[in-house]
Amino acid sequence: MAGLGLKAKVASAHMARAPAAIKNRALAGLAALLRQSVDALQAANQRDLDRATAAGLAAPLLDRLKLGAKDLDTVARGCEQLAAMPDVIGEIIGMKQQPSGIRVGQMRVPIGVFGMIYESRPNVTIEAASLAIKSGNACILRGGSEAIESNKALAALVQQALIEAGLPADAVQLVPTTDREAVGQLITMPQFVDVIIPRGGKGLIERVSRDAKVPVIKHLDGNCHVYVDDPCDIAMAVKIADNAKTQKYSPCNAAESLLVARGVADAFLPKIAAIYASKGVEMRCDRAAAHVLLAQSSNKAVANLEGLMAWATEQDWYEEYLAPVISIKVVEGLDEAIAHINKYSSHHTDAIITRDHMHAQRFLREVDSASVMVNASTRFADGFEFGLGAEIGISTDKFHARGPVGIEGLTSLKYVVLGDGEVRG
Amino acid sequence: MAGLGLKAKVASAHMARAPAAIKNRALAGLAALLRQSVDALQAANQRDLDRATAAGLAAPLLDRLKLGAKDLDTVARGCEQLAAMPDVIGEIIGMKQQPSGIRVGQMRVPIGVFGMIYESRPNVTIEAASLAIKSGNACILRGGSEAIESNKALAALVQQALIEAGLPADAVQLVPTTDREAVGQLITMPQFVDVIIPRGGKGLIERVSRDAKVPVIKHLDGNCHVYVDDPCDIAMAVKIADNAKTQKYSPCNAAESLLVARGVADAFLPKIAAIYASKGVEMRCDRAAAHVLLAQSSNKAVANLEGLMAWATEQDWYEEYLAPVISIKVVEGLDEAIAHINKYSSHHTDAIITRDHMHAQRFLREVDSASVMVNASTRFADGFEFGLGAEIGISTDKFHARGPVGIEGLTSLKYVVLGDGEVRG
Repeated sequence: MAGLGLKAKVASAHMARAPAAIKNRALAGLAALLRQSVDALQAANQRDLDRATAAGLAAPLLDRLKLGAKDLDTVARGCEQLAAMPDVIGEIIGMKQQPSGIRVGQMRVPIGVFGMIYESRPNVTIEAASLAIKSGNACILRGGSEAIESNKALAALVQQALIEAGLPADAVQLVPTTDREAVGQLITMPQFVDVIIPRGGKGLIERVSRDAKVPVIKHLDGNCHVYVDDPCDIAMAVKIADNAKTQKYSPCNAAESLLVARGVADAFLPKIAAIYASKGVEMRCDRAAAHVLLAQSSNKAVANLEGLMAWATEQDWYEEYLAPVISIKVVEGLDEAIAHINKYSSHHTDAIITRDHMHAQRFLREVDSASVMVNASTRFADGFEFGLGAEIGISTDKFHARGPVGIEGLTSLKYVVLGDGEVRG
Repeated sequence: MAGLGLKAKVASAHMARAPAAIKNRALAGLAALLRQSVDALQAANQRDLDRATAAGLAAPLLDRLKLGAKDLDTVARGCEQLAAMPDVIGEIIGMKQQPSGIRVGQMRVPIGVFGMIYESRPNVTIEAASLAIKSGNACILRGGSEAIESNKALAALVQQALIEAGLPADAVQLVPTTDREAVGQLITMPQFVDVIIPRGGKGLIERVSRDAKVPVIKHLDGNCHVYVDDPCDIAMAVKIADNAKTQKYSPCNAAESLLVARGVADAFLPKIAAIYASKGVEMRCDRAAAHVLLAQSSNKAVANLEGLMAWATEQDWYEEYLAPVISIKVVEGLDEAIAHINKYSSHHTDAIITRDHMHAQRFLREVDSASVMVNASTRFADGFEFGLGAEIGISTDKFHARGPVGIEGLTSLKYVVLGDGEVRG
């Protein structure tokens, strides 16, 4: 691992001064290679799938491991989109003259070497490699052992594209072994690795965070809230609460908890409950929410609800279900909603639905989460939807990068000083 | 310590939403209290000094411990200057509409709670407290045991100023004990503390970095270089190389190593060597630099130099002397200078003296240091000189904050999303 680290460090200096045109040529070349190599990549992927099937891997994991033609097209298009984006390296911001006469600004530079540790999905290999190339960093990739054949085939194409563009192949290295010790070494080499990005289950991320000796961009839970304020546009609130929960259950930016101001509970709750019921979403309600639902819904609707209603426990307010389940609570108003969110939220993404300007401002300022939203679905918390052009992960930390992390999260600002012979008096 | 942590966490939520006017009132009040309490503060400081004298503390340490009337005036003026600065909390940057219709920007918010661990200088108590107040954070301060009486007296004034302004006293807490275990606990409470800032000797910083379970803004060595390029204005190069080394020997931004392009060595080296010799600065030279000095200097100058010249060893290129000593090397030109700096520098601050525009651009881009300078003294690498208004430390890391850290280094950017009922398709 130290050998990989040293090679990455050396390559990172080349990458840092690579012209934008060369990096973009490598990305375009990689996209072309991916499109030309669909058969070979799928053959490698099939070997992983066969091994996984023989080992009795569960169907959803097999699904994540599979590299379909559509997946390959998506990552190839991702490379092309990155190539088309403006280059942020070398950007200088805030250059101002100081009283001494020197001019001081900040220049955006690559962070150096990042290590990426990820589980079965092999397309992450290309996502991470292409972000490294665009941002002028080197990276060391440690994919899941199930995907080793797929990852090796993909990484070989990346290195070919780098070489053909005149960039060092060592800028993107795949850890060739699948033993667990490699991870332990990768996260404890501050002399070679500037930041570690784990992507995978909570167990992986907690282990990496606990043992790492370098900074970690980590993404833990997404316990996201939708707070339906009084006053609000009820139809809008229903549409957003529906979308945030049911458009997809597994993403980290899906809503897990619904808070409803008492003043709009009668008007809002039966409507959203009917939709949730029709989609089979279990509702874990506090006493007040259950009371409203049972009192205000029609007899027929109540019959539909009954199998899907349950009492919320204290633990439910903390829960990230990633499933057709939502916790529902009636609150007195904005103050209680903010206090509840700041206590139970995982500080990922929380939204208010409101017509009240002062409430919107307070929610944005006072909710201590990476993404705070007014009148929009939590599902938008995503690097692409936020206009970052790419996403290497979502940070639930406050240090360095918060929320969706794109190219800028892989850069750092250094001070540049332009003088004319000034000295300090 | 967990009690202090919890109280800080609670106070931090109040501080985060405190209006700018209230925070500034607390800072102005603190300045007034400091000016009114000179006698009481000096009495407390005298108790520390008496104890330290009895314990046989060395004179330079006693000097750092002393809280003179001038020191108190300086920190009081610092508070007033911070009060006069614009407030950065709540600033929203980059708000842009995305294809979905949502508007996405970033809001600057306090990072939460920072822990500060520092050695004898008691004025750091006020510097850290005032930065915490202005930036809307809470802080836990752990000063040196020698300064405990001074720090307690200062912290009491801070809490009085907070209360009088209507802010929570717990926003600035001093660890009341001086046992070492408190530090170990302070740096391992990620549930309460968002970042640790150690200020002191290398031993302290290395220990904190090794053991911390929260992010650390750390400042290790300042092995700063001045590279005298060909072509350059020789008089300017002499003025800057003199100032960078001799204006003060102890600061981290003082130059420790002088690189000279071969083409200007004959013209430059004898001039700077004469100045260094007149100030008693020892010159650790490589063979080429020594050759130039002995060949080009007058006989009388050589006689002056002889006692101050020594051969540089490999270790000298790494050394942070913080003393009247400098290493000197003749290099072929820009490429060798950049390679040398990137190998031996501590990535703190490095400067080029040049007339060549392309060389200046390459130096700025390719030297991988927190502050890179053209035609200015390394001594400018400082939060005040850079226009940050204050400085909590200088970071030699690339993650989060790099170089001098002011108010912004104690903040984080969260995403704000303004919608009009948008949902994800």
